[in-house]
Parts: sequence; C-alpha cells; structure tokens
Amino acid sequence: MGNVYEQEIYQKALKAKEASRTLAKASSAVKDKVLMAIADSLVKSTGAILEANEVDVQAGREKGLSRALIDRLLLTSDRVHDMAEGLRVLASLPDPVGEVISMWLRPNGLQIGQVRVPLGVVGMIYEARPNVTVDAAGLCFKTGNAVVLRGSSDAINSNVAIARIIAGAADRCGIPADAIQLIENTEREAIGNLLKMDQFIDVIIPRGGAGLIKFVIENATIPVIQTGVGNCHTYVDGEADRKMAEEIVINAKCHRPGVCNAMETMLVDKKIAAEFLPAVAEKLRQNGVEIRGCEQTRELVPWVTLAVEEDWGTEYLDLILAVKIVEDFDEALEHIYKYGTGHSEAIVTDNYTKSRRFLNEVDAATVYVNASTRFTDGFQYGFGAEIGISTQKLHARGPMGLKELTTIKYIVYGEGQTRK
Amino acid sequence: MGNVYEQEIYQKALKAKEASRTLAKASSAVKDKVLMAIADSLVKSTGAILEANEVDVQAGREKGLSRALIDRLLLTSDRVHDMAEGLRVLASLPDPVGEVISMWLRPNGLQIGQVRVPLGVVGMIYEARPNVTVDAAGLCFKTGNAVVLRGSSDAINSNVAIARIIAGAADRCGIPADAIQLIENTEREAIGNLLKMDQFIDVIIPRGGAGLIKFVIENATIPVIQTGVGNCHTYVDGEADRKMAEEIVINAKCHRPGVCNAMETMLVDKKIAAEFLPAVAEKLRQNGVEIRGCEQTRELVPWVTLAVEEDWGTEYLDLILAVKIVEDFDEALEHIYKYGTGHSEAIVTDNYTKSRRFLNEVDAATVYVNASTRFTDGFQYGFGAEIGISTQKLHARGPMGLKELTTIKYIVYGEGQTRK
Repeated sequence: MGNVYEQEIYQKALKAKEASRTLAKASSAVKDKVLMAIADSLVKSTGAILEANEVDVQAGREKGLSRALIDRLLLTSDRVHDMAEGLRVLASLPDPVGEVISMWLRPNGLQIGQVRVPLGVVGMIYEARPNVTVDAAGLCFKTGNAVVLRGSSDAINSNVAIARIIAGAADRCGIPADAIQLIENTEREAIGNLLKMDQFIDVIIPRGGAGLIKFVIENATIPVIQTGVGNCHTYVDGEADRKMAEEIVINAKCHRPGVCNAMETMLVDKKIAAEFLPAVAEKLRQNGVEIRGCEQTRELVPWVTLAVEEDWGTEYLDLILAVKIVEDFDEALEHIYKYGTGHSEAIVTDNYTKSRRFLNEVDAATVYVNASTRFTDGFQYGFGAEIGISTQKLHARGPMGLKELTTIKYIVYGEGQTRK
Repeated sequence: MGNVYEQEIYQKALKAKEASRTLAKASSAVKDKVLMAIADSLVKSTGAILEANEVDVQAGREKGLSRALIDRLLLTSDRVHDMAEGLRVLASLPDPVGEVISMWLRPNGLQIGQVRVPLGVVGMIYEARPNVTVDAAGLCFKTGNAVVLRGSSDAINSNVAIARIIAGAADRCGIPADAIQLIENTEREAIGNLLKMDQFIDVIIPRGGAGLIKFVIENATIPVIQTGVGNCHTYVDGEADRKMAEEIVINAKCHRPGVCNAMETMLVDKKIAAEFLPAVAEKLRQNGVEIRGCEQTRELVPWVTLAVEEDWGTEYLDLILAVKIVEDFDEALEHIYKYGTGHSEAIVTDNYTKSRRFLNEVDAATVYVNASTRFTDGFQYGFGAEIGISTQKLHARGPMGLKELTTIKYIVYGEGQTRK
C-alpha cells in the first residue's frame, strides 16, 4: 500500500473481482433484466443526474473548458433517454457467454471443448463524456464482467450519480452492487496504481487521446487493448471510377471529421491526378476542407497549402486533408506502410489485381476496396454494439463487439484418462 | 538511443519488421520449403552446432551450473536430429494464414470478411534450452511471422550457431535472412530495451521462470502473452471412483513433476478421506513423493509433514505434493479460487451436478472432469504444435497452437458505398 490512492483502488478492484464471480454465473435472463432496470432507473432519476451534471458543467465553464468539451460533458433529458435506450438495445442482443465454439474427441476418448466465458473484471479509463459510464457498465454486465471505471475529473459528479444508479439497479436484480466500481480519485497517480492491479483486473481499455493511451501502455502491468489512433488513407487509383472516387473521398473526409475512421490523407495516382484532383479539391473546399498537398498537387490546385513532412503523420480529426500525388500503386503502398497507423485504409480502383494486392498487402485492422473508411464501426459491421476500435493485433483487431469482452476456457470430459 | 544495447536492438527489430513484410506474403509452399531446408541444414551442420554448444557447456560447468541446467543446455547428435524432425512435422501441418474465418453481407451491399493474417514480428525471451531457438523460429516462419529471439547468456554460442544456420537456409529459399534476429547482448538492460520496441514488435512471449515473466510484464510496452505458472489442483470428490482417482492423482503428480501442468495440491473430500487417503499416500511415497498435509491429513497419514500457509500457494515443480482434506465441494472451489493460478484444475467425481458446477465455476484456462491435468498441452489437444500455455485471458488462453501466432484483419468489398 504505497499511498492513499492505492488503498481506495485496491479495495475497489478487490470488490469488483469478488462480484465478478456472481456475474460470471448469471444467466442471460438476469443480465438482461439488470440492463432494463438500469435503463428505467436512469430515466426515473433524470432530475438527479442533470443536477449533478450541472455542477460539472458549471465547474467546466469556470475552468475555461472549450465549447466542444462542454458539449461533450453536458447531459440533457434527451441524452439520458438515449443512454437508457442504448441499454435496452443491448439487452435485446444475443449473449455471447456460454457458446461452445468447438468441441472435439481425441483418440484417447477425451472430449475437449472451447467455451466462451467472461473476461472477469474490465477496467475502463476514459475522458469527459459521462455516457461512457453507462455504455461501459452495460457492455460489461451483458458479457458477465464486473467493471472498474475511471472517468475524468471534469465529469466526476455526473459519473458518481450515474454509477450509484447503476449499482442500485443491479443490486435490486440480484447482481452485487460491487460489480460497478468508480474510482473517485481522479489524480494521475491514482491511474498509475489502477494499472498495476493485475491480480484483480483482467484487461484495461483506455478511451481517449493519444497521451492517455501512451500513459496506460507505459504503466500498465494489466493487459491493455489499445483503441483509437487512425491516420487513415484513401488511394485513388488510375483505374478508379472518377465519380465513385469523388463520393468516397468526400464522405470519408467530411461525414464526421472528428472521428478515428475519417480519412486524413488522400493519395492520388499520377495517371488520374490532372483529371480528378482539381474538381474534387473544389468540392472539398466547398465542404470547408483545408488541403495540404505535395508540390505536384499545388501545380494542379494552386490554392492548396504546401504539406510538410509532419502532415503525412498527423491525425487531424478536423476538416483538414493531406493530399499526395503518387507515381504508382507501389508508392501508395509504401506511403501507407510508412505513415499508416493500422486503422482503416481504402483503395478506389476497378483493377482486379490491384484490389487483391491492396487487401492482401496493406497491414491494417480494416482494408477497403471501393468504400468509405467511415464504415469501420461495430454497428456498421453488424455487431449490434461497439466497445471501441482496436488498432493492436492481440485479442481484438478492428471494431470490437460483445465477443471481444469475452475469453475462452477449455473444458475436458474424461473417463479416467491419464497421460502415457 | 539511450545506450549501446538500444542501438543493436533497434536495428535488429527494424530489420525483422522489414523482413516480416516478405514473410507475410510468402505462400505456404515457400514457408514449408524453408522449414525443410532449415531441418536439412541443421542435420548437416551438426558438427558445428555441437562444437558451439561445447563452449557453452564448458562455461556452464566452470560457472557451476546444476546438473539439471547443464542437461537442458546440452545438445547431442540425437537432439539436433529431434529439432530437425520437429521442423519437418511443422511443415506437414496446415497453414492457418489466409483462412477466411467468416464473411457476411451487410444490408447496404458491403461484403465484410475476417481473414487470418500473421501477427508480424514475434519477440521470444527464453532461458537455457537452445532447442527453443529452432522451435520458435519454426513456429513463427510457419505462421508468416518474423522473429526476434533473446536466449540466455548460458546458451549464447549455441544460439548464435543455430540462428546463423536458420538465416542461411531461409535466405536460400527466398525468405530474407533478417526474418530471424538474435539479440546477442544478454544483459538484462538489453531486455528492457527490447520490451519497448512496440513500433516494430507485435507481441512478446516470455518462456521461463516467474522472475523473468514478472520482469517482462512490468517493463514491456509491447503486448505480452504470459505463459507458465501452474499451481494445479485435483479435487477428489466423495463420489469419485477410488481406483480412477488414484490413477489420476498419481499420473498428475508423478508423470513429469517438473512441468507446469503437474498437480501441486490434492484436495480430498472429507467423506472419502479415511478410505482413500492412506492407500494413495503410500503409493505416492513409493513414487518418491513428499507430502505436506493439513492436520486432518496427518491424522490419517502420520508420516506426512505439516503443511504451512505457503505450501498452498507454491508451484513445487518437484516430487512434493500439498494435501488438504476439505469439508465439501464448496470448500474445494474456494480453495482453488484462493490459491489457483488459472492453469489446469481437475475434479474426480461421478456426480453429475458437481461435474457441471466444476466446469462452469472454476476460472482456469482448462478444467477437467475425471482426467489428469497433465493433458494441458498443445500436442495432447491435437493442435500439432505448441507455442506455450497461456495463463492470461487476452488473445490466447490455455495451450497455444499455430492459430495463436496469428491475428485477423477485416477485408471489405464495396461498390462505392458511403456512410449516410
């Protein structure tokens, strides 16, 4: 027990671990009942939630938080209803726990099966939005996991109010209130302690900016699922359908520029550049996009700012696009290899060989032919829920649904077999 | 570049990453050809390997390594042949890479598939045995991964000789020699640097004692797959077949006591203890097993040493067994929950309900009814190969075969879809 934070965190992580045993045994019916009860309770307690949120919003304004951050923090009656509705949808999804993924018979008669089971205790560290508190608890309960949450100090009053409602509803439905633990101490040192509770917590999922994720990776002894950074490219090949390419790049850049699956760099084959680029650049400009391009781009579109080396590696998360004209397909692949973050990469082409090579050779969580990178999303993939988008290769890669909050165990039926 | 080790390791990790691009594209035919070529080359170079090994063995003797450690270090002509044979078996196994695990069509016409792909670069940190150098390279090449190896200083000459042979054979078959990198600097500080090369290495698998694994987990920014520690229990229920229980516990303890799936504690239901324990204790003694038992055990078997608290948590890896008489099934579950390491746990019973509850409620990588824990092994499970046995819950749990050295990527075929 190194410090006062560690005491709080140790106790909470231990309680979550104990509660996870009950959750792991809970039937789908009980878990879904809990989700519905939380939804009802949130709606009923809207007044109390908004009151607590008002304290956070007020403090945020005094602290000088940006309008965008205040908007992320702010709850309204509608937003509380949306959170509740999300839980009801979750309750309607199939429960992945208990599925026997495969089972086989060995020559010695042992019957060996792989069964899907909860991870145990999931730790989530996240920034401003208080709705993540509801989402995370819902996703974890649905998959039979207890959850330890550490939200940001900006949302602490909202999070405390919401967590209390969740714990109360769980308790009334036969799930221990301890299954949700909120770390109320929001010092960074407290996160450091949380990240080392590997005897109690099975996985840490950080949701937030690059700085938070880096801190978690460098300090955790608990396994981490990295989410997030997406420096996504779209390569417009010389054999692309021009109109299709235009629609795809405008969608990938402008539909929601602040998210990880938005396009950050467009690569254009030299063969099509003169014909394609000026018109699409104009449309992008009409959509409010600032373009930072290579020298060749500027020759075709004079109003473009000159891109510097840093631009190729930047995830703008804004209405800014880097544009580079490449000699050929291979230069596009090399550029993506060098600057990509392994999130979502797309080619627009009507050439069969290049489509195959792009899918095979680009090393990313998701690779697209003739579609917008904006589709990288658990709901768009049909998973019915989303925990986040993993940009690492272990356990989960790409959009994560409910299955990614489970692990497997081997069950073995014998009749007295011993090893020879 | 903090220090001289970092320079070596940075360069080697970078080269492995570059080589991994070629390996990821290599066909199964090429990869299998490489494995066969390495096997032939090892056999042909037996003389050179044994000569290098002799230097290590000599140094080990001078350093005063135990006989057991010298035996682990020692290579013979037969052992080189076995290593080669292992590679030939590996070549005959199916290649997991390229499998489309599932593919589905979304309402908007997007076709989304999950394809199995190599991880990229695998880092292995291991202790004395030089055969791990061959195993690890073989398993990684088979699954299209480059490999960065860091063996122990005790085996450095053997490892250098073997790695050179592997690199040469790979090169002759069209795989870059850089696909295998051996870190020759064996200082612990050098491991520390290796563990932070997350821009190049996708996973670290430590194989060795608890101290090594702890060091890796505490220092790595690269995701780690933990292998190893097995404090395995067998619970002999009151409704067990006595003869079956006896055969299982003797096998689980005596067949190979030095490995992680050997039984370390036997729990005996009070109802069967008087009838079961004296005879089985005598048989265990005849097999050279020292027993450390609870008070009740000592009442039935007076020659038993009294167990102390520490015994319940110890992985002896030796002919020592802790024995506890429990009140009932629930006390057995609690004991396993408290002291188990989540490796392999077994019940011997003929009661249906207890068999079901044990499989469902014990949280371990593998749970057995009426079989020896010694079966926890990739070959015994029918995987044809084994990387190790994972005792963590992310990515891989239990015996790891070739599939566990792969990840997935999503491939998406579109016809111009954009997000609405």
